[in-house]
Amino acid sequence: MSQPVGRPRDGRVDEAIAAAARELLAEQGYAQLTVDAVAARAGVGKAAIYRRHATKQAMIFAAVMHDLELETPPDTGSLTTDLAALTHVIATTLSAPPPGVVPGLLADVHADEAMAAAFAGTFVRAERECVTEVLDRAVARGELPSRPDPARVHAMLLGSIFAWLFLLLEDPGRLDTLANTLAADVARLLTGSTT
Amino acid sequence: MSQPVGRPRDGRVDEAIAAAARELLAEQGYAQLTVDAVAARAGVGKAAIYRRHATKQAMIFAAVMHDLELETPPDTGSLTTDLAALTHVIATTLSAPPPGVVPGLLADVHADEAMAAAFAGTFVRAERECVTEVLDRAVARGELPSRPDPARVHAMLLGSIFAWLFLLLEDPGRLDTLANTLAADVARLLTGSTT
Repeated sequence: MSQPVGRPRDGRVDEAIAAAARELLAEQGYAQLTVDAVAARAGVGKAAIYRRHATKQAMIFAAVMHDLELETPPDTGSLTTDLAALTHVIATTLSAPPPGVVPGLLADVHADEAMAAAFAGTFVRAERECVTEVLDRAVARGELPSRPDPARVHAMLLGSIFAWLFLLLEDPGRLDTLANTLAADVARLLTGSTT
Repeated sequence: MSQPVGRPRDGRVDEAIAAAARELLAEQGYAQLTVDAVAARAGVGKAAIYRRHATKQAMIFAAVMHDLELETPPDTGSLTTDLAALTHVIATTLSAPPPGVVPGLLADVHADEAMAAAFAGTFVRAERECVTEVLDRAVARGELPSRPDPARVHAMLLGSIFAWLFLLLEDPGRLDTLANTLAADVARLLTGSTT
């Protein structure tokens, strides 16, 4: 991966910071990453980073998982396939970062109350909006009589994928299969169908 | 909480270590805990701790979550109620430790490959055996035609509870309700029933 030469043009600063963070995480691991090193690698000042990200952890989250805005997968015409697309987004989000990054971020978020509140109000909220939109589409299509509790659906989708990768340490090669089964299971539960 | 006076009798060493670890975690937090401090508080030598626990993290896990052997909840006569009992055990296990302990442990486990393998072979295995036993009972009763993949069921139960508490930062006061709904949902999925 090539390092930007000199200070990138302003519009490319976001991506330069994210790329530098990803490179350094892959090279050195989560615990060693500093904002100074990311600034140096990206060819920007620390102030440019802190204008965009309140904390080191927010910078890392945006670089390796998703930004504050997460695009809901396109309408596929059914709850089952919409849930499958969303579950694959979640699976990619959790499995893409270098080893140790997701558990390291989570520990840092929980070590600081203000950071936990910010995390819930930004990254969790962005993902929750996708879950809610997928459920609302199903209500609009007549697949569901009313919207189920998005928190409960979110916990099942995100939690199962997280547990597979980080709690149970199951085979990541089986993650795609798990995501498909999980989406179908949750759709069956919500629609009350046994097919 | 009172501190043991002098060196505890040998049969009480396990509990003295666990109690000291719990006290210090509650007083100082996860990041500050040392084996030296636990040994001093418990009135034992460090060697007594390392004879019982390969690592600091294994000592903490055993003290605040569950030991290598986890008792499967008694047979309640149905898959739904067995799953409810098991889900409540998991919910208690995850919600009881002082704030920050579960995410801190997880980050440490993932920062070291040998520790991750040991974690999967001990604590995860103990919980998996409970999941498997509950499913086997349902097969023996004729509620299920064959045993579903225990990893998938485990991911859904453990993951949803973990996500509620540590990823979505939802209200812990609603955890009991979530556990009941979740157990009923998983039982419906496995039996193919919509009631």
